[in-house]
Amino acid sequence: MQAARLHEYTDDMSEALSIDEVDRPTVDTSDGVIVEVEGAGWCQTDNHIIEGMWTEYVPQDLPLTLGHENAGIVSEVGEEVTAVEAGDPVICHPVQTCGTCRSCRLGEDMYCDNSKFNGLTHDGGFAEYLHTSERAVIPLPDGVDPTDIAPHADAGITAYHAAKKAVDELNPGDAAVVIGVGGLGHIGLQCLRAMSAADIVAVDLKQSARDLASELGADDTVDPETEDVASAVEEFSGGVGAQQVLDFVGRDETTALAPDITAAGGDHHIIGYGGHVHEPAQALVNGEFAFRGTLVGRYTELQELVALVDRGAVELHTERYDLDDVNTVAERLEHGEIDGRAVITPP
Amino acid sequence: MQAARLHEYTDDMSEALSIDEVDRPTVDTSDGVIVEVEGAGWCQTDNHIIEGMWTEYVPQDLPLTLGHENAGIVSEVGEEVTAVEAGDPVICHPVQTCGTCRSCRLGEDMYCDNSKFNGLTHDGGFAEYLHTSERAVIPLPDGVDPTDIAPHADAGITAYHAAKKAVDELNPGDAAVVIGVGGLGHIGLQCLRAMSAADIVAVDLKQSARDLASELGADDTVDPETEDVASAVEEFSGGVGAQQVLDFVGRDETTALAPDITAAGGDHHIIGYGGHVHEPAQALVNGEFAFRGTLVGRYTELQELVALVDRGAVELHTERYDLDDVNTVAERLEHGEIDGRAVITPP
Amino acid sequence: MQAARLHEYTDDMSEALSIDEVDRPTVDTSDGVIVEVEGAGWCQTDNHIIEGMWTEYVPQDLPLTLGHENAGIVSEVGEEVTAVEAGDPVICHPVQTCGTCRSCRLGEDMYCDNSKFNGLTHDGGFAEYLHTSERAVIPLPDGVDPTDIAPHADAGITAYHAAKKAVDELNPGDAAVVIGVGGLGHIGLQCLRAMSAADIVAVDLKQSARDLASELGADDTVDPETEDVASAVEEFSGGVGAQQVLDFVGRDETTALAPDITAAGGDHHIIGYGGHVHEPAQALVNGEFAFRGTLVGRYTELQELVALVDRGAVELHTERYDLDDVNTVAERLEHGEIDGRAVITPP
Amino acid sequence: MQAARLHEYTDDMSEALSIDEVDRPTVDTSDGVIVEVEGAGWCQTDNHIIEGMWTEYVPQDLPLTLGHENAGIVSEVGEEVTAVEAGDPVICHPVQTCGTCRSCRLGEDMYCDNSKFNGLTHDGGFAEYLHTSERAVIPLPDGVDPTDIAPHADAGITAYHAAKKAVDELNPGDAAVVIGVGGLGHIGLQCLRAMSAADIVAVDLKQSARDLASELGADDTVDPETEDVASAVEEFSGGVGAQQVLDFVGRDETTALAPDITAAGGDHHIIGYGGHVHEPAQALVNGEFAFRGTLVGRYTELQELVALVDRGAVELHTERYDLDDVNTVAERLEHGEIDGRAVITPP
Repeated sequence: MQAARLHEYTDDMSEALSIDEVDRPTVDTSDGVIVEVEGAGWCQTDNHIIEGMWTEYVPQDLPLTLGHENAGIVSEVGEEVTAVEAGDPVICHPVQTCGTCRSCRLGEDMYCDNSKFNGLTHDGGFAEYLHTSERAVIPLPDGVDPTDIAPHADAGITAYHAAKKAVDELNPGDAAVVIGVGGLGHIGLQCLRAMSAADIVAVDLKQSARDLASELGADDTVDPETEDVASAVEEFSGGVGAQQVLDFVGRDETTALAPDITAAGGDHHIIGYGGHVHEPAQALVNGEFAFRGTLVGRYTELQELVALVDRGAVELHTERYDLDDVNTVAERLEHGEIDGRAVITPP
Repeated sequence: MQAARLHEYTDDMSEALSIDEVDRPTVDTSDGVIVEVEGAGWCQTDNHIIEGMWTEYVPQDLPLTLGHENAGIVSEVGEEVTAVEAGDPVICHPVQTCGTCRSCRLGEDMYCDNSKFNGLTHDGGFAEYLHTSERAVIPLPDGVDPTDIAPHADAGITAYHAAKKAVDELNPGDAAVVIGVGGLGHIGLQCLRAMSAADIVAVDLKQSARDLASELGADDTVDPETEDVASAVEEFSGGVGAQQVLDFVGRDETTALAPDITAAGGDHHIIGYGGHVHEPAQALVNGEFAFRGTLVGRYTELQELVALVDRGAVELHTERYDLDDVNTVAERLEHGEIDGRAVITPP
Repeated sequence: MQAARLHEYTDDMSEALSIDEVDRPTVDTSDGVIVEVEGAGWCQTDNHIIEGMWTEYVPQDLPLTLGHENAGIVSEVGEEVTAVEAGDPVICHPVQTCGTCRSCRLGEDMYCDNSKFNGLTHDGGFAEYLHTSERAVIPLPDGVDPTDIAPHADAGITAYHAAKKAVDELNPGDAAVVIGVGGLGHIGLQCLRAMSAADIVAVDLKQSARDLASELGADDTVDPETEDVASAVEEFSGGVGAQQVLDFVGRDETTALAPDITAAGGDHHIIGYGGHVHEPAQALVNGEFAFRGTLVGRYTELQELVALVDRGAVELHTERYDLDDVNTVAERLEHGEIDGRAVITPP
Repeated sequence: MQAARLHEYTDDMSEALSIDEVDRPTVDTSDGVIVEVEGAGWCQTDNHIIEGMWTEYVPQDLPLTLGHENAGIVSEVGEEVTAVEAGDPVICHPVQTCGTCRSCRLGEDMYCDNSKFNGLTHDGGFAEYLHTSERAVIPLPDGVDPTDIAPHADAGITAYHAAKKAVDELNPGDAAVVIGVGGLGHIGLQCLRAMSAADIVAVDLKQSARDLASELGADDTVDPETEDVASAVEEFSGGVGAQQVLDFVGRDETTALAPDITAAGGDHHIIGYGGHVHEPAQALVNGEFAFRGTLVGRYTELQELVALVDRGAVELHTERYDLDDVNTVAERLEHGEIDGRAVITPP
């Protein structure tokens, strides 16, 4: 089968991946599941993987088939699999978990001691077939197209996971700030809207992104190039600040907003990871706020997100590309030229 | 009456405060309370105030009587006060709150819109008498000496507040790290011990502090000068890391430990504020950990701490000093020469 | 001034209250607030008070002016009041709290050690003026009519309080059941809708109530006279049961539904109190569910509800009546003839 | 091998189970685990099963080998098992779970859609060997004897699970009531002690049980035959009531205590299930308290309990009996003649 693989870390996206002919995976454990990939979302993290930015954090062997946002049709299952059968449409949580370590037992899939991360530590779904396992697949409700929903496997649950943590702390009348209304941010905003009655203000450099935010339910928007974000949030929140900030950008200049825009006791969630956090300890003490990292999301959260999609509460704009176009997608994303989410559709 | 007051910000602790003769405060509101001070703890924050480190964060008019860890005997009350009467021994929450803003209504005393912070924004208790209010005083149980308990008014609840946040996340078998077993740290450690069954490891440069930690219930101690803290925590926690870290130091080198010692999903609480947080956003994402600032504590938490003291679960080592000795205390603290907590006993 | 007062407990609603000429209240404490009542909602609890059903639970002296759902214009304030001034439109939390007991300090207004409950333990708002206090009033946003919002002071926050507890446990895809879509139930349903993405099924005997439920966002409705509620909930929830049940009726036959409709680990909230809970302990154990009583709500929750009203998320249908008509209202409510909520408008 | 099996429901404990010769179980799935049983605790639930009290709640086929509190040595494992190997000492969570349903994914083992409950729905451990699975076994720390720890598999985690829910709501200075200091109660009390600084009062009819409670850390005890429990709790708690009540008895007379002993907003946890809950809905509303059922506990909670045992925080008094003595044990428990917990030690 064909697979888009990384052979060498590079900053040149035009020759990032090569389309290789590789063996089609087969089931080799009792809980194995092979999925014929119908859609595989392309993520900013794919660019970061290509640049070698994850080598410090996880083990990686090259060549590696990328792609961690996958959905498709089950084509083969291991002999003890009962949750799905061949022919079932599924979305794939990006992490294959062992189910027996303490983290798995707590429902914390992302902390599994024995996890395999599709397209990051193991071969992913920019390919005709994906090898995964029973614990990683979620059957799709009738009428949900695997290609359309694929990006929710990572972009979706990452945004949902962060939004859910924020919603736990948000009451009606509280202010929430969404920084960056891109691939993840526009999902996070919709999740906040569906699960809370907070007042939401969206911050983005692009007019089109701010317009999208308004359409999707933001109560106000801010252009950081022409407005002072701190003043805008102060006014929007009646001087209190934002109880919750979802930072889908994570650059030095967005994390630096925290002491000025976060309400006492509030949280600045770090979802995007383009830069650093630099802050005097005294600032965190004085405002009693937190910088909280957020990492993808739980399997059960992907179930919950599928339920949100099923009830029409979260829309996702996608553009489809052939497998051969992966490097074009990588380049266009690098230059901010992808609107919505690019989905690779293997042959 | 006599009061130890700050007239000018300075780094020279030998002439930090002067002993002035000032008017004794009188009740001027229906809820006013005057306390004859029996003990007033000296805090690292007093040194920071003297250095001018808080001018950027709160409004301050000099001269100012310092002292925010006060306990004593009620000497006069406003006409509508019912919670205490003259003659009652009390400990004073450092913040006088309005009781009507939303933060007060939520029980979040530290976020009061109209708060007065003793010895920081308003005159404090390094004086014979302190002007405070009904909502700021807690009657002491029989047998508790105001002078002994005074430092709990700030050192105590700050440590308790952080420990309580940590305890919410700690299960038996989990590891907790206490960094810095000084004035606050040795209280925080005892609070963790009393309210959780976590495995506790204490980190401190001083042998005497590590010995104290062991005595107070730490399961293990680490000397960061001779041991690698990350390796020690990894071994102590069976490779998982610490679910909760209480950083009573807050220097660059202690906050930098977070990615290496915090378990996935865990928290690094910033209590001490000697330095900065510097971290790539990706580190917070990869480990899904948080830096959480912590600021003093709630009135109800001071009640809870008094209950802990009353049941013998938290000991506090204090050394008594005359009001005239304030600058000696300031200097000795600056040089790490105070063991336990210095308590000023006005005449 | 005129006030509708209870002189004797009775089951005959036609002569429940009498319109008396009484002294207009005046401010007698520094935090006192006098409100000229514009609207005072009539509640099922008023009927219960008239019947003497609360004498066992709270101290009551007759004659007593009833009315605990009040809103109006501030006419006079005590000398230390800063939160409001004469002329401000306000809604009145039904309970006047002391602000100094531990419950108040925790934000638990309903548990105040020294509380006064308007129209239950102290004179209420079926009168031209109401005596209350600074801690009990919430300024209204521009454009909100006091008469229209008055019932939210009790019906509203009671429903909101229960819904908020439920929302804490509801994820997208979970099922919630609302039993009784009357005065409180139709508010509770809207609160669930605004603050969660749960699937909501409403149960009511009346077609008009079920129609209203559908209009307000229920995903399904059940008529308990023609359908088996347990089977309907089982089907609606895909066999799992309802994670949360809001029982605004509280009769023997509705509480008896709990073991059959509540999901494992779920809650059956008791808001209405027409009957009893009768259940084998083994049923609670086997299903690990809870019966959770709910009592009005916090001051901060009334703030949050006002914010919901302000953003258009909760509508309230009201009918206005003159003070002279109180007994007509009492009778009509007793016979289920009030649609929406009756609001008394004193002269 | 030998197994103690139930052939017919009966109230006559003297002939409850018969010792049969049955086939030794063998591994038939990739995750199967066979444990050579060293200890199997006898539980009040075993008596209830014999009486047929669970037929209404779960499917049961007779004959059935009873015994759900098992520990022993792994003798055989399925081919994909990695968590344990032959020779490992383990304690067995009583429920074998599928690991793929949503409840399992949430960590809620007790709600598994496909669960097998040892000794209740499937053959248990009053036998030489037990068939269980990888997800149900927890390796024991060095030095922990399987026979001694066996009862923690159900009595232990049930008490721990309830205590943990209570601890989440208990602050220093709060009162907790433990009703019934028997097999479960004496564990629950120790868990409260280890994980909170609440003031604990224990209620039991037997002097020996009250003495044990004092020894294990209760701050006070009450004899319900000579003292009024409500008055005692009121005095003990300074008039507030108990924030949390753990009712290990669950009879009509103990559940009836709830409105009188539970603090506003508190919980009465139903763990024992000898009787009923009968209460006016108004009582739950007025006191805003809850009756919360509790069902065994999670796998991760058994890990946490093992950690508590390992650090010496929970002691368990056991008496050992031969497999042949099962009916003697059943009878003696029925007559309240077992002190501590009876553990069957198969040959």
